[in-house]
Amino acid sequence: MASRDRGPRSDRNGSTRRQFLLGGTVAGVGAVSAIGIDAALRGTPPTATASEPLNGDVTVPFHGAHQAGIDTAAQAHGLFLALDLLPDTDRDGLRRMMRILTDDAARMTQGQSALADSEPELAVAPARLTVTFGFGPRLVARAGGTAPPWLAPLPVFTIDRLQPEYSEGDLLIQIAADDPLTVAHAGRMVLKDTRSFATLRWTQQGFRRAHGTVKPGTTMRNLFGQVDGTSNPEPGTPDFDTVVWNADDGWVAGGTGIVLRRIAMDLDKWDRLDRPGRDQSVGRYQSNGAPLTGSDEFDEPDFDAKTPIGFPVIPEFSHLRRSRSDNARERIFRRAFNYDDAPTSGRLSNAGLIFVSFQADIDRQFTPIQRRLDELDLLNEWTTPIGSAVFAAPPGCSEGGYIGETLLS
Amino acid sequence: MASRDRGPRSDRNGSTRRQFLLGGTVAGVGAVSAIGIDAALRGTPPTATASEPLNGDVTVPFHGAHQAGIDTAAQAHGLFLALDLLPDTDRDGLRRMMRILTDDAARMTQGQSALADSEPELAVAPARLTVTFGFGPRLVARAGGTAPPWLAPLPVFTIDRLQPEYSEGDLLIQIAADDPLTVAHAGRMVLKDTRSFATLRWTQQGFRRAHGTVKPGTTMRNLFGQVDGTSNPEPGTPDFDTVVWNADDGWVAGGTGIVLRRIAMDLDKWDRLDRPGRDQSVGRYQSNGAPLTGSDEFDEPDFDAKTPIGFPVIPEFSHLRRSRSDNARERIFRRAFNYDDAPTSGRLSNAGLIFVSFQADIDRQFTPIQRRLDELDLLNEWTTPIGSAVFAAPPGCSEGGYIGETLLS
Repeated sequence: MASRDRGPRSDRNGSTRRQFLLGGTVAGVGAVSAIGIDAALRGTPPTATASEPLNGDVTVPFHGAHQAGIDTAAQAHGLFLALDLLPDTDRDGLRRMMRILTDDAARMTQGQSALADSEPELAVAPARLTVTFGFGPRLVARAGGTAPPWLAPLPVFTIDRLQPEYSEGDLLIQIAADDPLTVAHAGRMVLKDTRSFATLRWTQQGFRRAHGTVKPGTTMRNLFGQVDGTSNPEPGTPDFDTVVWNADDGWVAGGTGIVLRRIAMDLDKWDRLDRPGRDQSVGRYQSNGAPLTGSDEFDEPDFDAKTPIGFPVIPEFSHLRRSRSDNARERIFRRAFNYDDAPTSGRLSNAGLIFVSFQADIDRQFTPIQRRLDELDLLNEWTTPIGSAVFAAPPGCSEGGYIGETLLS
Repeated sequence: MASRDRGPRSDRNGSTRRQFLLGGTVAGVGAVSAIGIDAALRGTPPTATASEPLNGDVTVPFHGAHQAGIDTAAQAHGLFLALDLLPDTDRDGLRRMMRILTDDAARMTQGQSALADSEPELAVAPARLTVTFGFGPRLVARAGGTAPPWLAPLPVFTIDRLQPEYSEGDLLIQIAADDPLTVAHAGRMVLKDTRSFATLRWTQQGFRRAHGTVKPGTTMRNLFGQVDGTSNPEPGTPDFDTVVWNADDGWVAGGTGIVLRRIAMDLDKWDRLDRPGRDQSVGRYQSNGAPLTGSDEFDEPDFDAKTPIGFPVIPEFSHLRRSRSDNARERIFRRAFNYDDAPTSGRLSNAGLIFVSFQADIDRQFTPIQRRLDELDLLNEWTTPIGSAVFAAPPGCSEGGYIGETLLS
């Protein structure tokens, strides 16, 4: 299931084009052509040179065996749009909609404006833009297709306090880039193009570190300060392919299952927990993400290690232990974003995690992990799932094709 | 009123430190020290090298004659917090609060964690963080000070549809950086430290282009696609100093007046306007921001130019003409951010501009411009001010001092 027609995974990090830019003397010209070179150079601080590459120019290939935005190194900003189909959007309408949206995505991700774009000037800097589509159960039914068994709302977990405004949906559009204006513009563009077919159900906006803040490849930190996402399969490896790409479910083959959960994090309560308590609740040191039995973030945790008085070093109730399984199938690929929205009155924060995971089979891979965390996970003390949705991401498409063609054509 | 003790203005762009980083071989080590070099390098795309400078390491000096975050080249992300004082926060309390907040800001902007920080790991990458304070009329009264005549709510404009949840406030804290996690963490840190003195009245979050997306110095675009902020005084010039830094008003001298208005932009209605209509409403081409009488963004508009049939080329009702004054005093320095929040039900967007302007005297500089725009400005068709607040930014402080000491000590 490797992405043969797209070349090495470095493409997905945008580095081929980047390599070109690093070596070239024309770097940056593309992104500023619309506004004029004079204007672009005015006010340039003394150390900026014309040869410095612009991250805004970097593109991620759109066409390929798999959709982009899954094995792509996570961008700084993520916007998640969930749509509900209008009652009269039938199979033909779905096909029309997905052809239009595919065209929009194929253009915008390459730094071209979409066909009906009234602000093409906002499309000049893709900044690793990806647009990724996921189908909910009702969309598949409307298409007359067969949903994989795992494409259904998750079981009810006791920790859940789900709000409909952050749950379910017929079509998911994940828009991600390293630039927030690019994300806003792409989001608006695709939303406009869905108007005849669907209504907006919910939106969620999240962020990670900005491009250039820390070294590429640094594991993200969430708003609790924790290193979040250490034991993730590595895109481009056979391990990743097995965990993520679906090989079994007809039109989904080459695609993946998407779980998106909005996890509210109670920062005020977390504040009252001391450092040892924080480290123990996760089973990792907040300082560098190392397991409590190690010194480096990527050290393998030793679940058998005991303290001098006989207690497990990595507590039984820790998130690390509870989320880990002996069953090699029970693994997922996480690609989360932080959110930090305006607090409602009387609160100091309205923050948390837009948990996003990709896995070939949600029932067999995600759900057992979540069941264990639901039963016992000290982190549940400070976190509350308030939104939940599942989607099936169809595979990618070639030029001239469209996302969803395996279901709709 | 030049910032003598802070050195050349390039400091405010962080370029001195940047210059060092570009030449050094240790670039990036600081920002990753907390998580370990091995971890930081894992997953690094092939073209990233250890010598590439990290924008996360760049700092803007905190101490100086003026507060940072005003003449600082605008960062990618801005968070605006407005607080209301608790009833028993007296002059002593204000002094204590401003000492604590100054200490937080002085540390965090230099990449050190604040004293009571429970997530110091989130403070390692300042990414040009600035924290800027503004005092509202009630804070000045509580301090027993004299407010400058211009420190009062703006006159009521007919176009205004102000909502209290985005208006007024006793203390403004503007937090801006090129990294969204840095902004979120700094915002939370200062909010925690105000808990004994004030309550949160409102928050607003905005963005511009990410660092590295386009050339530094490129004028921002707003969500209408317009080049926004062309005729702005240039920081570091005598012109800027005259427009921005207050020289007259006692404890405000060396500071400035802050106007913050939340301008909702009706993207759906704007969509129905064709390109010539868009260009005429502003008096500038959307394509490159040039005035309709010119070809380059920075061409001086020719307000006398006529079309072949005798109409002004730059229409009488255009935003450009209406905002321009013959009176050289009626000028302001704009430093706005876009916002794009989750739409309320049934809408496709909830977007606009967090208009922020700095001027030595709000009554003489800002208000006449806004009066003219209130009377007539075609852009009013698509924009609605929904929030408004004014503050006085005290001057900066030296090491050992605190912001507000000219009022409070």
